[in-house]
Amino acid sequence: MLDSRRKFESSEFTSRQDKTRKAMTESGVEVMIVYDPANMNWLTGYDCWSFYVHQCVIITTNGELFWYGRGIDAKGAEFTTDLDISNILSYPDEYVMSPDRHPMEFLAGIFKEKSLNKKRIGLEKDNYYFSARAAESLYRCLPDSTFIDQTGLVNWQRAVKSETEITYMKRAGKVIEGVYERVMKVAEPGMRKNDLVAEIMHAGAQGNQGHYGDYTSFVPLIGVGEEAAACHMTWNDQPLNNNEGMFLELAGAYARYHCPCSRTLYLGSPPQQYLDLEKVINECIENAIEMFKPGNTCAQISDNFTATLKKYGYEKSNRCGYPIGLSYPPDWGERTMSLRGTDDTVLEENMTFHFMPAIWFEDWGFEMTESVRVGTAGGECLSNVPRKLLIK
Amino acid sequence: MLDSRRKFESSEFTSRQDKTRKAMTESGVEVMIVYDPANMNWLTGYDCWSFYVHQCVIITTNGELFWYGRGIDAKGAEFTTDLDISNILSYPDEYVMSPDRHPMEFLAGIFKEKSLNKKRIGLEKDNYYFSARAAESLYRCLPDSTFIDQTGLVNWQRAVKSETEITYMKRAGKVIEGVYERVMKVAEPGMRKNDLVAEIMHAGAQGNQGHYGDYTSFVPLIGVGEEAAACHMTWNDQPLNNNEGMFLELAGAYARYHCPCSRTLYLGSPPQQYLDLEKVINECIENAIEMFKPGNTCAQISDNFTATLKKYGYEKSNRCGYPIGLSYPPDWGERTMSLRGTDDTVLEENMTFHFMPAIWFEDWGFEMTESVRVGTAGGECLSNVPRKLLIK
Repeated sequence: MLDSRRKFESSEFTSRQDKTRKAMTESGVEVMIVYDPANMNWLTGYDCWSFYVHQCVIITTNGELFWYGRGIDAKGAEFTTDLDISNILSYPDEYVMSPDRHPMEFLAGIFKEKSLNKKRIGLEKDNYYFSARAAESLYRCLPDSTFIDQTGLVNWQRAVKSETEITYMKRAGKVIEGVYERVMKVAEPGMRKNDLVAEIMHAGAQGNQGHYGDYTSFVPLIGVGEEAAACHMTWNDQPLNNNEGMFLELAGAYARYHCPCSRTLYLGSPPQQYLDLEKVINECIENAIEMFKPGNTCAQISDNFTATLKKYGYEKSNRCGYPIGLSYPPDWGERTMSLRGTDDTVLEENMTFHFMPAIWFEDWGFEMTESVRVGTAGGECLSNVPRKLLIK
Repeated sequence: MLDSRRKFESSEFTSRQDKTRKAMTESGVEVMIVYDPANMNWLTGYDCWSFYVHQCVIITTNGELFWYGRGIDAKGAEFTTDLDISNILSYPDEYVMSPDRHPMEFLAGIFKEKSLNKKRIGLEKDNYYFSARAAESLYRCLPDSTFIDQTGLVNWQRAVKSETEITYMKRAGKVIEGVYERVMKVAEPGMRKNDLVAEIMHAGAQGNQGHYGDYTSFVPLIGVGEEAAACHMTWNDQPLNNNEGMFLELAGAYARYHCPCSRTLYLGSPPQQYLDLEKVINECIENAIEMFKPGNTCAQISDNFTATLKKYGYEKSNRCGYPIGLSYPPDWGERTMSLRGTDDTVLEENMTFHFMPAIWFEDWGFEMTESVRVGTAGGECLSNVPRKLLIK
């Protein structure tokens, strides 16, 4: 690993690997093929935008750990991980995007050489970038293996954050504070949406208070006027209008760690419906923050939120949050827990969530969200962006 | 579709759908489940950052076409497609990222209602976001269907661009010209990499000559000093040094259409190896551009490139380009053809490629690339960035 690329002590990687091996043993798998780029990074440090081709980290319960990817990415593995060069294995370029051969066929050959072909192998069957053909290539080429779906196994190990991880998330929190300061400085009627986004991206990469900004796993989502009824639209070149509201779903990122934070911005004089909902969502957030303590469940937080909403005549039929941390596009969630009524996971200290009490109506929407660390005395916000309807 | 979101005439979507249905018939499939977000957009216009959850477009040879995704994204489908509301179908939120139920199980129910469950169904088994579990959920819930891998079927229909598509790619070309103008204006020794990227992203979203910038499917890749030996690393907060070279792998984007263009930038006095390679790559590009005409093959372009390199004592063991156009993260390539010696695809007018004669050595790298339209008189560059080693 290059010194300039080290983000964690070697010991932190070792303890993550140990934790993962323990979970593998408990789940009855001897080998894990880890495709999720965030899981690959968390286990080894690997950090390149190379997840558009097949690649993975292999970890076994008897001590093996190796990176497997495209030949031209081996150098990136050398620069960003502590792996010995003998544990950086790659496939030839003719396996890249070819209808005739698949990188998982080549990996099967490596498994045979390493006598990993008669093992119980965990797969991330519903994680990003592990395609149906990748799975079927493995089934076909490793007929003596037993394959078991362990989609969230590594993701779950990431749920409780280390001190360094919390530090990075708070730095990401500083980054998003800088982004909103920029928004408040530059947003004005007549500005094209893409010009507002240009400022957001500039402030996001520049960073804040000495902390640089990394890329975020979503691009800035911006819902202006009636488009705010849709929650995942991106910008075009239409101008912002006076007396128009918009939600901004944004995050700061530092060293691949995220701190999402959404706000609603109104240019002009907001109608009563914005002010009413601002008050309600503020109450929801205050209630929720208190509840982000060890022992409470995801469902309790969701139920409390739903009850507060109901008291004021609102409802929301989708989950109100998810765990966050290290991530790569297309998602900054960790895909383990959900803040919904059916999730009885018990919170532990230093879990981190994006509490997401956003509501989308038929012709407008309102987002005001917080990223929160679970603390013994209740939740701690990871950023400090004014928690209000932003008006300019 | 909202007027402000219309990028193509309805007739262009219809002709794309017709073309796809014809290819389906030729391939012996009656139904295609289309997961690739670029394919979904190309067929219907659907354009939201919602591909982090399961979603697809279903097209059948007997005239059906519907969007299927998460409930909260239906509004985005209404705003960005011409589909009738009855053809925007969604799954309930408890299917989102749940270990107990999968959106493809819910889709299987819809297939039964629509009598699509005894058909020959094409799947994009090795396309983005179609996970192994998505496939296996379909196999289990639709035992009377026949599933056939048709990974590239829709991607191939996208290969030859329409006039409007070429116009958008040229606008993306203008955007990347503006980005490099900004780079030449601001890059200097001592600047942190993230601050250079902030300027690149700002110029990229701002756009150029009246054309806005959309997000690109890769973030800016920057390889500075020894890190230029690795081809897919992203920025951190290290400063640029005097007498240091770096490659910039960048693109402009307009309405999701891309124009990639890489350059190498040297701050200070470049050593001879940079100047030597600049000359060689320039010759490679000039030769290649002439060859981008109908009737030539991908292999011929690759072979010509390899021969020119060899003449000067260089070699490159990976493909030297790929088709481009409409795309979403994590890749701006179309994943059909490759510019490599084994690909005998014959070029047609208005195919578009990123010609990528980049070379990475043990401790440095050099990128100078062009996006090219196949034209009857030879290739036409889609942007006009000074084709040289950038020195400042």
